[in-house]
Amino acid sequence: MPYQQQKFPCKNWKLNYFEGDLMTEDKTSRGFTIWFTGLSGAGKTTVSQIVAEKLRSRGKKVEVLDGDVVRQNLSKGLGFSKEDRDINIRRIGFVCHLLSRNGVVAIAAAISPYRVIRQENRALIGDFIEVYARCSMDTLMQRDVKGLYKKALAGEIKNFTGVDDPYEPPQNPEIIFDSDQETPVVSADKIIVRIEELGYLEPLTASGYTKEEEDKVNDRLKALGYL
Amino acid sequence: MPYQQQKFPCKNWKLNYFEGDLMTEDKTSRGFTIWFTGLSGAGKTTVSQIVAEKLRSRGKKVEVLDGDVVRQNLSKGLGFSKEDRDINIRRIGFVCHLLSRNGVVAIAAAISPYRVIRQENRALIGDFIEVYARCSMDTLMQRDVKGLYKKALAGEIKNFTGVDDPYEPPQNPEIIFDSDQETPVVSADKIIVRIEELGYLEPLTASGYTKEEEDKVNDRLKALGYL
Repeated sequence: MPYQQQKFPCKNWKLNYFEGDLMTEDKTSRGFTIWFTGLSGAGKTTVSQIVAEKLRSRGKKVEVLDGDVVRQNLSKGLGFSKEDRDINIRRIGFVCHLLSRNGVVAIAAAISPYRVIRQENRALIGDFIEVYARCSMDTLMQRDVKGLYKKALAGEIKNFTGVDDPYEPPQNPEIIFDSDQETPVVSADKIIVRIEELGYLEPLTASGYTKEEEDKVNDRLKALGYL
Repeated sequence: MPYQQQKFPCKNWKLNYFEGDLMTEDKTSRGFTIWFTGLSGAGKTTVSQIVAEKLRSRGKKVEVLDGDVVRQNLSKGLGFSKEDRDINIRRIGFVCHLLSRNGVVAIAAAISPYRVIRQENRALIGDFIEVYARCSMDTLMQRDVKGLYKKALAGEIKNFTGVDDPYEPPQNPEIIFDSDQETPVVSADKIIVRIEELGYLEPLTASGYTKEEEDKVNDRLKALGYL
């Protein structure tokens, strides 16, 4: 009988307890979704690209569903009303779901301002890591790379999140990074470490190899007589 | 230097020629897209479900993007004008593309009436197998499981493909099946054989195992002293 179905304390609970691998599942070969949320300009795209590269270099299959890519390929015709935003975010969630359940790491980087829709996606996908790209409004307005905040404040763009449209920050995200206080690489490293902690990625050993790679190297060195 | 980059005849072309595996690529671990096209009621959904099951039983990861699923999760709000149909089919193509390039078999089952958009998806995806679900109009009208042809002929539904909206059959599909002349299981078997021929699926041996599985069984039997 699988451990999970046994009543507690089951006959051999100590055995199960000590044989930790019976209780914890290996998630390192599983797909999952990293869901970036945050205001425009808070660093979602920049940091998600670095995270994607790091995960690829660790052997993961990765797809990034960035706001712009999505608006072009999945959501052409949708606007920025609450209803259209909800459809857009649900749609990205659906595609992340298809990818994740087939072993891919799906990375979504869209403002996704409404908490309840993000929660819906979390429930759908299951293996869901929410990353909050946090940044003070002062810094965002100072940066304003695309000049969007200026336009929104001048009333030239309507329904701009953070100006005249709401943003609901996540209450229990798996990770928060503060892009006004740290570099994108530092944020990306924090995210990678958290993914390791959550069990979706095998931690690197001190040598910079994964445990498995290190074992292989050691076996090879032994076979060659060096160890 | 890789064989492809060498001038012909290169120094060791005979060697390369006879070592066939240097020249032909193994596609059996690659993702691909099976694109069903055909009129409403021609058997796309039924046959695609059987094909999906067969591929899963052969160890493939499979996602079916059926017309109805897609209208709900990817294309809510789109209608049946030429423009909306094109957006819908491109969108399904985009998702098939994401899945296929990550090793998944994506199966699309949507009418997809316009040749040029199907060709666009073929170009985007590359590993693309077009399946034409063919059926005479007589049989379709006789079947008419959902009563749609009746309504379309009575003018109660507009833009119905095959009645008052065009359908452009594929000119060089990888497979055609005639659902008014064969059972769904026969059609599905034909498709599986064609996928094997195209190199995306390892053929079964006479025993019903793949070559790899058969080797494993034989090794085991040898180890146990039976062979």
